[in-house]
Amino acid sequence: MNLSGIIAYPVTPFSHDNKHVDLEKLGEVIDVLLDAKVDAIAALGSAGEAAYLSESEWKQVADFTVKHVGGRVPVVIGVAELTTEQAVICAEHAFDIGADMIMLSPFSYYKLSEDEVFSHYESVSNASSLPIMIYNNPATCGVDMSPEFMLKMVSDIKNATMIKESTGDIQRMHKIHKLSNGKVPFFNGCNHMALEALNAGASGWCTAAPCLIGERPKQLFEAVKQGESEKARELFYQQYEFLEFIVTSGLAASVKSGMAIQGNDVGEPRKPLLPLDYSAKQRMTDMLADLSW
Amino acid sequence: MNLSGIIAYPVTPFSHDNKHVDLEKLGEVIDVLLDAKVDAIAALGSAGEAAYLSESEWKQVADFTVKHVGGRVPVVIGVAELTTEQAVICAEHAFDIGADMIMLSPFSYYKLSEDEVFSHYESVSNASSLPIMIYNNPATCGVDMSPEFMLKMVSDIKNATMIKESTGDIQRMHKIHKLSNGKVPFFNGCNHMALEALNAGASGWCTAAPCLIGERPKQLFEAVKQGESEKARELFYQQYEFLEFIVTSGLAASVKSGMAIQGNDVGEPRKPLLPLDYSAKQRMTDMLADLSW
Amino acid sequence: MNLSGIIAYPVTPFSHDNKHVDLEKLGEVIDVLLDAKVDAIAALGSAGEAAYLSESEWKQVADFTVKHVGGRVPVVIGVAELTTEQAVICAEHAFDIGADMIMLSPFSYYKLSEDEVFSHYESVSNASSLPIMIYNNPATCGVDMSPEFMLKMVSDIKNATMIKESTGDIQRMHKIHKLSNGKVPFFNGCNHMALEALNAGASGWCTAAPCLIGERPKQLFEAVKQGESEKARELFYQQYEFLEFIVTSGLAASVKSGMAIQGNDVGEPRKPLLPLDYSAKQRMTDMLADLSW
Amino acid sequence: MNLSGIIAYPVTPFSHDNKHVDLEKLGEVIDVLLDAKVDAIAALGSAGEAAYLSESEWKQVADFTVKHVGGRVPVVIGVAELTTEQAVICAEHAFDIGADMIMLSPFSYYKLSEDEVFSHYESVSNASSLPIMIYNNPATCGVDMSPEFMLKMVSDIKNATMIKESTGDIQRMHKIHKLSNGKVPFFNGCNHMALEALNAGASGWCTAAPCLIGERPKQLFEAVKQGESEKARELFYQQYEFLEFIVTSGLAASVKSGMAIQGNDVGEPRKPLLPLDYSAKQRMTDMLADLSW
Repeated sequence: MNLSGIIAYPVTPFSHDNKHVDLEKLGEVIDVLLDAKVDAIAALGSAGEAAYLSESEWKQVADFTVKHVGGRVPVVIGVAELTTEQAVICAEHAFDIGADMIMLSPFSYYKLSEDEVFSHYESVSNASSLPIMIYNNPATCGVDMSPEFMLKMVSDIKNATMIKESTGDIQRMHKIHKLSNGKVPFFNGCNHMALEALNAGASGWCTAAPCLIGERPKQLFEAVKQGESEKARELFYQQYEFLEFIVTSGLAASVKSGMAIQGNDVGEPRKPLLPLDYSAKQRMTDMLADLSW
Repeated sequence: MNLSGIIAYPVTPFSHDNKHVDLEKLGEVIDVLLDAKVDAIAALGSAGEAAYLSESEWKQVADFTVKHVGGRVPVVIGVAELTTEQAVICAEHAFDIGADMIMLSPFSYYKLSEDEVFSHYESVSNASSLPIMIYNNPATCGVDMSPEFMLKMVSDIKNATMIKESTGDIQRMHKIHKLSNGKVPFFNGCNHMALEALNAGASGWCTAAPCLIGERPKQLFEAVKQGESEKARELFYQQYEFLEFIVTSGLAASVKSGMAIQGNDVGEPRKPLLPLDYSAKQRMTDMLADLSW
Repeated sequence: MNLSGIIAYPVTPFSHDNKHVDLEKLGEVIDVLLDAKVDAIAALGSAGEAAYLSESEWKQVADFTVKHVGGRVPVVIGVAELTTEQAVICAEHAFDIGADMIMLSPFSYYKLSEDEVFSHYESVSNASSLPIMIYNNPATCGVDMSPEFMLKMVSDIKNATMIKESTGDIQRMHKIHKLSNGKVPFFNGCNHMALEALNAGASGWCTAAPCLIGERPKQLFEAVKQGESEKARELFYQQYEFLEFIVTSGLAASVKSGMAIQGNDVGEPRKPLLPLDYSAKQRMTDMLADLSW
Repeated sequence: MNLSGIIAYPVTPFSHDNKHVDLEKLGEVIDVLLDAKVDAIAALGSAGEAAYLSESEWKQVADFTVKHVGGRVPVVIGVAELTTEQAVICAEHAFDIGADMIMLSPFSYYKLSEDEVFSHYESVSNASSLPIMIYNNPATCGVDMSPEFMLKMVSDIKNATMIKESTGDIQRMHKIHKLSNGKVPFFNGCNHMALEALNAGASGWCTAAPCLIGERPKQLFEAVKQGESEKARELFYQQYEFLEFIVTSGLAASVKSGMAIQGNDVGEPRKPLLPLDYSAKQRMTDMLADLSW
């Protein structure tokens, strides 16, 4: 499994009464991403409101995504379950349906010790042969994993082979790169830090941005990889306000509102999440206009 | 509803295979608490591993607790659901089974805006006539609510009438007391801050400590209420290390391990939570010996 | 040296051109404090703008204070110098003029290691036989000292015998009390935490508040010591907004502006400090009116 | 004044009794920096222990530096004084001796308001015609200035024309670049963030590293400017551990110890600063060996 580039996150469209997943629309969102030349599809991440889906909805989305992508690019399945038992069930399901990889975060109500986190990852690793991307995002998951600890898991847990870092602290990436002699692939999960993450050696960028701004993230990735640093800087600053906005406004709400502005109605996020308010929608409209070709 | 004193939190005992709630044992835990002269029972809080129960287990625990307590003291039902829809279902259930109150926290994967939190509380308030205790614990819930915002909810949301503050910042309690002219009851949710919370005017103390140290929390509460400040200080410092330890080691794990040490086997916590390790169990053993009569 | 109660901090009055210390006015400020029945006078603390005095002004203030107080209460001399050499000079001077105690903080441009802080305190201790109060206030000094480290200094450095804690974290005081078995005296340096500090066992309260609100801090101290907890709570909440305000608005600026409102012109603070602005002065006027007898 | 590239910080050598500045050695340190092809010399920064110099020593260092550099590169004079009056005196002196620029930080004992900081910068700006680099380093100065506020000062204060950002938060640089449309030059003050700062558009890098590792910082700067991103990454990771080490161990202590290891005895830092301890010196020795040509 040699993943690199743009790992794209579809939102999960809901029916108008918010009660059901709208799979047809999900197919359209995935197509938007594939048209944006992304290198992988990651279903059931933060942008996908995985935490707000019932178990059967979660499986619906996983199954549909694998089938709809149909091998055109790898499919990553996000697993962020409160209990180890449920995380194992999700991982087994991801394997059964033919997904390519698991992105596993230690979402927790409690502060977990490193022993508890390690054991959680180990159990999920033992549940299938799928490679695991260790996903660190304390802002959503409530648990912060140091570079040293994540590298220990990569070293000691069979299927744990990659890291997604979303703290927004570039030093974490330097540490991962340096301590592993550049051997452990890491991915950027903080949209408005994409330029420095890629320059620091990130293998790719995990982002929902292509739902709204198409190929721009891929162009930025390519510019850095080609060493076109002036062009990379320009591309980054063009997207910067937008990237910061979708992070600080909430990914699911802002991407769904943005798609509606673009004429692509994918429903509202689930409560307690609310759609963007009027002024935020105005700002989104302006930014999307600036970023359209 | 005039709640005050010790609001006690039972752990949720599991069967030895960790797969089922052991209701008989739950009854024994509740009896330990009632013997410790607590003033209310709060089921399905952090100590009760509510986040790790299936929906049917959650209802089992709620139903059993109300029935077992049988009106001897009020029963508070903790609600910490990721979606508003599920929180409403839990609140309706609490009302249907005759619970006395709901303790509602905005447990979240995402950072929620104040509008989102407000709307969540409003929906739950509209679901039943039960009084709601607003529960602020950013360390577990991922959302921090300011004193000003919580008082606004008390003022604008019909059934929101009380506050439980668990940040560990005594200034929050001063603000609640001062801004509401002492009119909005608030409760301490930070065990090792109990002395100052009660001195600052807290109506009560929400704690799982009586599972292990019996009447001592109630004695501390009474000493402060009676103005016996020297005695209160002594009682507090006797319990201090223990109170800090169960918070920093994790409530469910440490209380369950402590009960086993006392010969009261209530099973292990659910994974990813792990039981206390050897040295922590030793320390617990020593502290419980010091605190026994 | 058995210090307890209210340790009061005079501001340092300046001439109208801000260029000279006005010793006559300083005498009046000290008299205001002594009339408020304070138990010690602490010259050259934060409220006294010690950081903004030249070396000769610093000595003027120290000399005058010792002479003016004339043994009526103990005099504490604040030492917060950037170099160890200068701190030693100040300590020797305090001894030479007959001051009773040194309050020493590790004011620093750099983050200091514990070895560096220890060595700084040791050098000052060796410079005289005066008892040293270890003063922890990371917000002004840039260095945070843990309870464990400060207790180690009390244990290993001859004249270091007391602690002033100003972080605003009540747990620090619990730790000091518990780890020293109540044997190391500690003082509260966070005005709006006075109630809980005293209830937690603080020997006294270091404050500039009596410059403006006379005996009220002493009354609060007495109420706690007498075990009149209801009265203590009332007295505390009467002063609470005022105490929080002078901390958050800056002690020197707010106390000087407050004294001017009371008809006691002690000049302005030194730049970059600015006097309170119009709306802050209004608020101060209102609070002082509420707190006058 | 068109400053860019490596702005290098000499340490301030002291005599063996630590009582005097050793100007002859200071000349040697400056020569080491000029040999490393740096683009400017910044005297009296953090690395130069400016906070630990008497006023006359401060002037000695300033005068000598301007004279010794003799126009080969621009000379920046650091000003970090506690009072506005003293900062103005320093700025006037810098002008009088023919320095090219002032680097001004709001070093403070107190938390300053934005009005207070603004007024401080304005007074210094009025004191001479020298351009001012606004220097934000809350870790040493105790005051944090937002990008928005610093840009307001650039806009409203005549001589404030540049920014040095040392928080270590790359987002601050993105904000400065974006909000000023790339028009306000900013410099990196966080050594181990140099790669991303330069990629984000920083005009230069303020660093004491060339005292020990010669041209390597300049090579990194050049590689980024030439768009050789692969080479830049390699150069950065070669220096990374060293750069992080001198920041976390303290610049003055670590650079002075490192120079001694290289056979260049520049004396010890002033107390409370201590030289590196044995194991830190060992690590420094190893890192310097790895980085030597």
